[in-house]
Amino acid sequence: MSETRRTGGFTLPGEAGYEALTLEMAKKWGADVIRDSDGTVLSDEILDAGYGIYSTICIIRDHNAWAKEHPKELQQCFLMIAPQVADGGELTIPLMKDFFEEQFAVNDSPEAFKYWQVYDRTTDTVVPAERWSYRAADGTVTVKTTPWHSYTVSFMAYRIWEEISMYNHTTNNWDKEHLMQIDPMYPETQAYLLDWMRRWCEAHPATTVVRFTSMFYNFVWIWGSDVRCRNRFTDWGSYDFTVSARALDQFAEKYGYSLTAEDFVNQGKLHVTHMPGTQRKADWMAFINEFVIGFGRKLVDIVHEYGKKAYVFYDDSWVGIEPYNGRFGEFGFDGLIKCVFSGYEARLCAGVDVETHELRLHPYLFPVGLGGLPTFMEGGDPTLDAKRYWNSVRRALLRAPIQRIGLGGYLHLVQDFPDFCDYIEEVGDEFRTFASFHSEGEPYTIRTRVAVLHYWGKLRSWTLSGHFHETYMNDLIHINEALSGLPVEVSFISFEDVKHGALDQVDVVINAGFAGSAWSGGDVWKDAEIVERLTRFVYEGGALIGVNEPSAVDGYDTFFRMANVLGVDEDTGARVCHGKWQYEVQPVDGLMPKGSFVKKKGDYRKGIPYLMGGDVRVLAEDAGVPVFTMNRFGRGFGFYLASFEKTVENTRLLLNLILLAGGEGLDGLYLTDNAATECAYYPGSGQLVVINNSEEEQSAKVRTEKGDVNVMLAAFETRIIRL
Amino acid sequence: MSETRRTGGFTLPGEAGYEALTLEMAKKWGADVIRDSDGTVLSDEILDAGYGIYSTICIIRDHNAWAKEHPKELQQCFLMIAPQVADGGELTIPLMKDFFEEQFAVNDSPEAFKYWQVYDRTTDTVVPAERWSYRAADGTVTVKTTPWHSYTVSFMAYRIWEEISMYNHTTNNWDKEHLMQIDPMYPETQAYLLDWMRRWCEAHPATTVVRFTSMFYNFVWIWGSDVRCRNRFTDWGSYDFTVSARALDQFAEKYGYSLTAEDFVNQGKLHVTHMPGTQRKADWMAFINEFVIGFGRKLVDIVHEYGKKAYVFYDDSWVGIEPYNGRFGEFGFDGLIKCVFSGYEARLCAGVDVETHELRLHPYLFPVGLGGLPTFMEGGDPTLDAKRYWNSVRRALLRAPIQRIGLGGYLHLVQDFPDFCDYIEEVGDEFRTFASFHSEGEPYTIRTRVAVLHYWGKLRSWTLSGHFHETYMNDLIHINEALSGLPVEVSFISFEDVKHGALDQVDVVINAGFAGSAWSGGDVWKDAEIVERLTRFVYEGGALIGVNEPSAVDGYDTFFRMANVLGVDEDTGARVCHGKWQYEVQPVDGLMPKGSFVKKKGDYRKGIPYLMGGDVRVLAEDAGVPVFTMNRFGRGFGFYLASFEKTVENTRLLLNLILLAGGEGLDGLYLTDNAATECAYYPGSGQLVVINNSEEEQSAKVRTEKGDVNVMLAAFETRIIRL
Repeated sequence: MSETRRTGGFTLPGEAGYEALTLEMAKKWGADVIRDSDGTVLSDEILDAGYGIYSTICIIRDHNAWAKEHPKELQQCFLMIAPQVADGGELTIPLMKDFFEEQFAVNDSPEAFKYWQVYDRTTDTVVPAERWSYRAADGTVTVKTTPWHSYTVSFMAYRIWEEISMYNHTTNNWDKEHLMQIDPMYPETQAYLLDWMRRWCEAHPATTVVRFTSMFYNFVWIWGSDVRCRNRFTDWGSYDFTVSARALDQFAEKYGYSLTAEDFVNQGKLHVTHMPGTQRKADWMAFINEFVIGFGRKLVDIVHEYGKKAYVFYDDSWVGIEPYNGRFGEFGFDGLIKCVFSGYEARLCAGVDVETHELRLHPYLFPVGLGGLPTFMEGGDPTLDAKRYWNSVRRALLRAPIQRIGLGGYLHLVQDFPDFCDYIEEVGDEFRTFASFHSEGEPYTIRTRVAVLHYWGKLRSWTLSGHFHETYMNDLIHINEALSGLPVEVSFISFEDVKHGALDQVDVVINAGFAGSAWSGGDVWKDAEIVERLTRFVYEGGALIGVNEPSAVDGYDTFFRMANVLGVDEDTGARVCHGKWQYEVQPVDGLMPKGSFVKKKGDYRKGIPYLMGGDVRVLAEDAGVPVFTMNRFGRGFGFYLASFEKTVENTRLLLNLILLAGGEGLDGLYLTDNAATECAYYPGSGQLVVINNSEEEQSAKVRTEKGDVNVMLAAFETRIIRL
Repeated sequence: MSETRRTGGFTLPGEAGYEALTLEMAKKWGADVIRDSDGTVLSDEILDAGYGIYSTICIIRDHNAWAKEHPKELQQCFLMIAPQVADGGELTIPLMKDFFEEQFAVNDSPEAFKYWQVYDRTTDTVVPAERWSYRAADGTVTVKTTPWHSYTVSFMAYRIWEEISMYNHTTNNWDKEHLMQIDPMYPETQAYLLDWMRRWCEAHPATTVVRFTSMFYNFVWIWGSDVRCRNRFTDWGSYDFTVSARALDQFAEKYGYSLTAEDFVNQGKLHVTHMPGTQRKADWMAFINEFVIGFGRKLVDIVHEYGKKAYVFYDDSWVGIEPYNGRFGEFGFDGLIKCVFSGYEARLCAGVDVETHELRLHPYLFPVGLGGLPTFMEGGDPTLDAKRYWNSVRRALLRAPIQRIGLGGYLHLVQDFPDFCDYIEEVGDEFRTFASFHSEGEPYTIRTRVAVLHYWGKLRSWTLSGHFHETYMNDLIHINEALSGLPVEVSFISFEDVKHGALDQVDVVINAGFAGSAWSGGDVWKDAEIVERLTRFVYEGGALIGVNEPSAVDGYDTFFRMANVLGVDEDTGARVCHGKWQYEVQPVDGLMPKGSFVKKKGDYRKGIPYLMGGDVRVLAEDAGVPVFTMNRFGRGFGFYLASFEKTVENTRLLLNLILLAGGEGLDGLYLTDNAATECAYYPGSGQLVVINNSEEEQSAKVRTEKGDVNVMLAAFETRIIRL
């Protein structure tokens, strides 16, 4: 780092009782803003020190007194009991048997009860109302059955414990009152909250920014009655916790058809974000988004009336905020804050249409980190943690501008870790330097433009559903993470976009996921127009990179609908008696850096990739099966990778593949010659940033318009060179 | 071995020019019959030595002169070219581009041409006749296309080189005339063959048994034009090589509907025996069986007229013979000969309703064995090979009676391997001893009766499709092989059988295969009655053992339709956000012998097994996932195994599991205490046979009604003890 250090763009978590430390660290790290945290209050000494003040509110909880008086305005959801097998005669099913009674209470009000459903799961048909009855006294449903069939009951439940409160209680052994979440879908709740918001603003004159801890509806998190299966279901992208009888009634009025319990519980599978959605789900999402934006805007307007800014923390209760649905701007937020472990999360934040983008860096200032390992305590190494997290995020920050960073947690914990304090100082400076480069123009990118094609398209730009460690089993999150720091223009497109001409704007399309998933596409691939357009796109010079089970759907001559283009299909078992093409592995020089790999993805008793013909070039094999191939198709190429796993070497492999697919050389300008290193060049300021993504010393040579630049980089080092 | 040696039940391959050796070996091995082989002729010295004489005929080849005069009576099949992508305008497709021109010739006769089809594979629809045309001059089809769609042509072809001849030519570098196969579907061929058969019998007075090398139709074997993918398709159980315009016309007349090319080519997948069939395929099979039996019977009758016996060698051209379709007896064969590598093949042979069952043992007397390794030549160890093969077959012979064994190949090759000659002498004696035990009554079995449930049921008893090394990727062949030597009554039932009460006759049902396969069942599981009956069966005290993806089908709340019974389901991806039950591994004492295992079956990014509830007992895990479980359901049990691999230890595991499932103790009578050993007890003769299945010395203790028997067994040893 050779740039002048500056101040600003840094949010520090203040802590009452540690006023001197707060102010000392604010100075050291160049903070311009001090924030409180959930459950902490800043003292006047801090409030009066001249810093901007962020105050955190979670709009739907912390209203227990009101909630207790209005139990019918609590948030709700559908629950489906586990299937019960009938052994003859009637089946009596206790509704709450499977569920955590501290989280849920049966909602058998008439307006909710009309949405209950009993299903015969053996035939997958609704059981008519005259064949089942509900006994409120003991919370059971009795069904007249067909012997040996299995049955489920889907009922509506109030949620009586806000899930983040519940989690913190359980994880951190809290002993406070259970917080409840109230549902702004109800007019009484809306009136209460608007009034509350005004009163809050009046009570917090020092606050310059109101940080909404997301909006109204939490990601779904259903807990079970048995501690051995406490977590029954959780999905960051789900809309299950937005349900109420009132919302369903309003939906029916607006859309002209009624949703049922089954539309949500979906045979007990619910609607996992990793799977393709349905039009009914899309309608519901639009309906909820409309509502959240509409009422959310009213709250934001109040904040603005009081001369404060309104930021939203994109986390727990984000459902309905969809930052990429094209309507996010309607909220009127001044900023979006995202906690980040990974580069793709930084890009997710950076890409949102809002004035200020802020990252909450890891590690949080907590004694114990994610997964329960020590951080700010004996046995922890928060500085190394910080370096590793920054290593993931830094390369993304080189590609896209972010205005602010910050930390969260209890500041007093840093006292025993002076090297951590020094490292964060460094990080702050680096961050501000990168931001200054971006302000002078966009970084250099290669010519080839990449589109990631999946069911959700732009709506799920960069992310799948949650953090990397929650979604690592999907090739696409590895690809997104690799892309997040590459000098490549990336867009996320849906199959509808393809039908509306999106391929005109891109050079390389990536489709990566297992068959049937949202990331591969599922049944969407039955649409011949998609196949036609992509086939033409490649034939006329584009490239398709298919990973895992790209374009896979049952019912056609090939399992991969794009098999003729990719040059590879997968045997689902129906081709086990078919001969497979012999091949020789013919690598492309320089494509696969040392240490890079493509692995087979299964045990290959089933799902074996096979070559469509003798002209397909096998770039790599694993366990005697082609796992990385290249197929000339018309003027373009199809590439197939059995899997993709993010490592520094494989990240470079992906960049090389994009260069090759786009017809660019592998040794172009502003690329390092060492996969452990990367660089970014800012033509506006003439600055070249070279980074070492590894934990060892590395050399790097960069070809530039002004000749080669050679550097040696220490572990994790950032080097800035003015050309 | 302590039994008196005897003579008989042994077929020796004679060799002209080695008369003394032939007679010497015949004596040593106790042969009562001498056979010729394809391409060898026995000399008078052998014919006159007082032995029975088997003569081999392959009824549909060796008629080249007649075949050349009747090119329209050659056998035929449908071929589908690989899909071609349209890039605008017309597409001209050369029909023979993909196929081996020495094997196939286009049949564009009017009666065949009417069955040709052009398909748009992008929409999977037939292209109307007015949109395509055929040019005989250059063998191409031209299609008016929708741009970017892919197209296939399915046409009829004559087969101009009999496939076994073709294989031998290619493998053994033969340089003889290509043999052609003629089709007895044509009346001219029938007349010719009936006449030929008579003349043959008259010309072979010394022959006592005519060995038909199967009947008329070879298993399908489609060769490609490119040596890098010579074998395009091969399936022992397929009916693709039974097609002709005449047969299709007759079928339409008889069944009232026409089959199309698509019914055979099936999107290019053809109909692999490992996948479920269709009613149309079943009709075709019945039609062909009817024909093969009808005309086959005429040939057998001629053989009988001449006072000879007729045996059939169940191999290459077996299509239409289906030994388990309930009609095999109608042929009038006197014997069935089966070449065997494995125990299940011996059981397959033994179970056929025919007077004489004969096994052709391996190794064949060829210089090179299967897979190209040396056998009767430098570097080979035919004695060890023979021991290993016998080791697989022996345990099956202890369970079911076989009347004859024999060898095949060139006898002179044994001259340099005297230890082989000695070992075969021993094998012959063992075999005759076992046969004598069977003649005094059935061996002891445990009480529990097992049914293997799959799509084909009894029709595919014991075998899947071909040899073990061709089908090893299926759990079921491992299970069948394990079962082949267990003291258990085994039946093979179909889903139709279940609906007709088959479960009344069994105690344990095994369903083992990957989702969608014939062995798991595929769409058959959509039938609620199957689920009802199996559920009831277990509830009332039966047991279901599910392996890999038992009862799996898409569209329901669980992927395994029997998940509630099995206690395990599989996550196809839709449940990736669902919590999984924690468990502790709780083995059952003695169930899993040392060295036995159940392995996970994939990389578990997808297809993860999960417990249906907290009461499911996990018997074993692999890679952190339950792979072997036990679930109490009503009065019975569901067991789930992620996979099954045949080893001596796992064979015992399967036996133990059957005992446990059937409510029997693991330490019952007539079981050895060492998984490397097995035993069979014959109550009729009081004989106990204890065998060592391993290549090391083993001890074994057997509990009997007369007390414990303790033995030490040398590698591979067979010990006979009279109780």
